[in-house]
Amino acid sequence: MFYFVCDLLGTIAFAISGVLVAMDKKLDLFGVFIIAFVTAVGGGSLRDMLIGETPVSWMRESAYTITIIGSVIFAVLLQQRLKYLRRSLFLFDTIGIGLYTMVGIDKGLDAGLIPFICIALGVMTASFGGILRDILCNEIPVIFRKEIYATACILGGVIYLALLNTTLEEEYAYALAIIIVIAIRLLAVRFHIALPNIYRNNAKE
Amino acid sequence: MFYFVCDLLGTIAFAISGVLVAMDKKLDLFGVFIIAFVTAVGGGSLRDMLIGETPVSWMRESAYTITIIGSVIFAVLLQQRLKYLRRSLFLFDTIGIGLYTMVGIDKGLDAGLIPFICIALGVMTASFGGILRDILCNEIPVIFRKEIYATACILGGVIYLALLNTTLEEEYAYALAIIIVIAIRLLAVRFHIALPNIYRNNAKE
Amino acid sequence: MFYFVCDLLGTIAFAISGVLVAMDKKLDLFGVFIIAFVTAVGGGSLRDMLIGETPVSWMRESAYTITIIGSVIFAVLLQQRLKYLRRSLFLFDTIGIGLYTMVGIDKGLDAGLIPFICIALGVMTASFGGILRDILCNEIPVIFRKEIYATACILGGVIYLALLNTTLEEEYAYALAIIIVIAIRLLAVRFHIALPNIYRNNAKE
Repeated sequence: MFYFVCDLLGTIAFAISGVLVAMDKKLDLFGVFIIAFVTAVGGGSLRDMLIGETPVSWMRESAYTITIIGSVIFAVLLQQRLKYLRRSLFLFDTIGIGLYTMVGIDKGLDAGLIPFICIALGVMTASFGGILRDILCNEIPVIFRKEIYATACILGGVIYLALLNTTLEEEYAYALAIIIVIAIRLLAVRFHIALPNIYRNNAKE
Repeated sequence: MFYFVCDLLGTIAFAISGVLVAMDKKLDLFGVFIIAFVTAVGGGSLRDMLIGETPVSWMRESAYTITIIGSVIFAVLLQQRLKYLRRSLFLFDTIGIGLYTMVGIDKGLDAGLIPFICIALGVMTASFGGILRDILCNEIPVIFRKEIYATACILGGVIYLALLNTTLEEEYAYALAIIIVIAIRLLAVRFHIALPNIYRNNAKE
Repeated sequence: MFYFVCDLLGTIAFAISGVLVAMDKKLDLFGVFIIAFVTAVGGGSLRDMLIGETPVSWMRESAYTITIIGSVIFAVLLQQRLKYLRRSLFLFDTIGIGLYTMVGIDKGLDAGLIPFICIALGVMTASFGGILRDILCNEIPVIFRKEIYATACILGGVIYLALLNTTLEEEYAYALAIIIVIAIRLLAVRFHIALPNIYRNNAKE
């Protein structure tokens, strides 16, 4: 139940982020819904198809679709106020990636995959929805330019897997790892922490 | 047999729409074929992967691939005349989405999914091929700008599911729903019916 | 073992081609890694999802991921020298598509698909990674503009399937077909062989 509520919160956050991007592109109501839907379920669908757990999650549980429809209606009606909500949306989004990462890792462990691959699966679950959103809107995915997203997921995933090998209960390890992902991302944004630059010549191009 | 002929007609329509878009982009013969192929089988492949019905349809039945190859040859040879064919192509395309929607819904029902999700699956089957076509050609998918496409699918799907609960035979319900999708789309285009505008300030940007 | 080494060589080549494209786009370290990863495993993942062989290959064998990580580190550290390596990279890449084509065809035959569809699967395995790479970097996929890629795969695949029906041992047929793909591609590039032009009016646009 705890996991399920968190999962729906993540769905809400991703759906609203999809609405915001789609409305910037002036898509019509249906286009906005599709982008919201794809952003929210894209990561989980890819994960389920890759490990062969079909039909994929959102098809087996209508709560996801209902949540997305509700989020789109909410976001479209309140579009004027959403400008002020964007900061809390960033928080929601971060909670979403924290949770989706752990959901993906758990699914990988259930499927008998090695830890290493499970973390890759967690990162995909958390990031693929946003990548699809940006591709559909014809932009280079934001994730490729601001990496705090994925680095946070990877670190959180490593810590989660490490904690599972301690005597700590799984639920606590899960919650702790989510908090770590969120904390890393918030701190990275606040203090402008980025990956080391890999380009020798830094001249503006 | 009736379903199968309709399915191949839909395949032809989508393949030719792919050829038209690819030739506008001046792709070479192989690129044109790939775009035609992806447009025609993209929706069904996604549907089959999401519900786990693999290998996907076009792999189990070579008639699809043969039909696509024939359509590409036909469209490339007759490219000068196709300009005059575009209006009937729009009709073919509309027949295609009508049918693909119902095929997708039926597959969802067979997989034991709830009606709600089946309609989503129907819309995906009908629209994903065109979305892929536009992404591969580096454009914002047309479907996100002209929504009559998906709204028609959704309404047709709802009516189909309602009719299945009456004493009407399944074949008639199927055919009737396809006609409804086609009629809605044709009427929407003819009378410029669109979804309500969701943007407050309508100034040109 | 022979197949596995070739497969990893192909993985290295595709990963490095991903790094080169991503660095041209000035993506950060994580973006570069993601593009390299997607280029290297994209084709095989699509193939495995389409035929329902899940979890997909790279999830069952961590050697792929390790190889990709190593290739990215190597390519980033040696970026200054890679300019001189591009010609041999083209060779690696060509070896990669030769091999990936045959791997895809073999997987299709194992899944009981007809020869015709197996070749399509081989082409997808060889080309989808590069298509994803270009879409993620927001460009029209190179494959749609320079078709020697896929035509070589198709011819090699046809010859491979023909050789399997002779008394020639499978390993030799496999190796011979790979060499044919490579030779066709190298010769096509060297002598500027292209598909016949399908556009009547050739004026520059």
